Amino acid sequence: MIPQRTSGELPAWTARALGYVFVSPALCEMALTHRSAGSCHNERLEFLGDAVLNCTVARLLYEAHPKADEGALSRQRASLVSGETLAQIAADLGLGDCLRLGGGELKSGGFRRASILADALEAVLGAIFLDSGYAAVNAVVRHILGTRLSELPPASELKDPKTRLQEALQGRAMALPLYELTGVAGEAHEQSFTVSCDVPSLKLKSVGAGVTRRRAEQEAAERLLAQLPADLQKI
Amino acid sequence: MIPQRTSGELPAWTARALGYVFVSPALCEMALTHRSAGSCHNERLEFLGDAVLNCTVARLLYEAHPKADEGALSRQRASLVSGETLAQIAADLGLGDCLRLGGGELKSGGFRRASILADALEAVLGAIFLDSGYAAVNAVVRHILGTRLSELPPASELKDPKTRLQEALQGRAMALPLYELTGVAGEAHEQSFTVSCDVPSLKLKSVGAGVTRRRAEQEAAERLLAQLPADLQKI
Repeated sequence: MIPQRTSGELPAWTARALGYVFVSPALCEMALTHRSAGSCHNERLEFLGDAVLNCTVARLLYEAHPKADEGALSRQRASLVSGETLAQIAADLGLGDCLRLGGGELKSGGFRRASILADALEAVLGAIFLDSGYAAVNAVVRHILGTRLSELPPASELKDPKTRLQEALQGRAMALPLYELTGVAGEAHEQSFTVSCDVPSLKLKSVGAGVTRRRAEQEAAERLLAQLPADLQKI
Repeated sequence: MIPQRTSGELPAWTARALGYVFVSPALCEMALTHRSAGSCHNERLEFLGDAVLNCTVARLLYEAHPKADEGALSRQRASLVSGETLAQIAADLGLGDCLRLGGGELKSGGFRRASILADALEAVLGAIFLDSGYAAVNAVVRHILGTRLSELPPASELKDPKTRLQEALQGRAMALPLYELTGVAGEAHEQSFTVSCDVPSLKLKSVGAGVTRRRAEQEAAERLLAQLPADLQKI
């Protein structure tokens, strides 16, 4: 349960990595404590951090992209706050060395696991929110996102999966994908739809499920995109 | 496109209904403009408002329920910010009379439609966030949620669906539900699971789908709960 960095070193780490020094260092320690390491762990702070991160990023994007519609803003945010992006940021900041993990997690290398890193980074943001309020989190989020905010992936990559799949196929003059409703389960207002997506020319097929037919189609399209040959993914 | 309330009456309405007066009344008017009424509509503000509402409610719940785990906090928040709850609050505040709707929506009674009311209320919160910042939104959210915050449904209703179903059946000494994996689609890391939930003693069956087996089971349980006779739903 001993992290590579001791409690005494945390203030220097947060100052350097986050541009922030905690008023209450105990909040920072709780944020860095995985549930495997004790009952006073970071899961409640992670809930709070996820919410405040989504809010700060929503406003940063709203102001930076005055012409983007809500769908584009939503996709841009999803790419910035994905588990993958957060884990990468946490790793870059050296957060893994500060984690408090239980024996099992420590042995199995939990300090390198993406989900644990991403969750702990959210928890640290939740801790700053309690420690100093909204403006402090906003400043830290700007600091840690850095150039990711100004260097977002091209708008084409942030289009919804059905649109991206259609454009990828049309770009090579290939026939459009075929969507077929393969199943509906549940009573009205509580239904679940299953949809298949078929690209016969490539012999590829995928299945998606969702609470609306549209969502099931989007999921199927997303999965088909993942199966496309690399040269078709970049149009 | 003329709302029941004119622009000149909006400051009095926001002061009375929200406990807030806009510095920039134009932001308030945009928040109340449905996309059917023009290009300067409220969908971007709704994106922002959804984010700031989730954040304020997360913190209010975090502080009000120091012993709740993150799952309970998440379910409590979902019940407070559901479309249904927001539409009810918007209706109670008389927001429908302030909406700017296009001709078609106006004729078809769009000012009473739940989704339009809920979205506009979120947009108004987004507008306050831009107008005066986080603290102002927080105060307005406390004001409009009012006793809903202190009178949340009993914790039992906020347990996860599988637990609620199990407790409902055990309370009548009935056999536990049977979950069966009925389908797996997609490649590894991109799978979709379908699960059936069977309660033979009541001749009830449901199906759920999700990206993990556990989520599919929870969805199936939620749907089975909805089919239970009323006397079994309250344990």
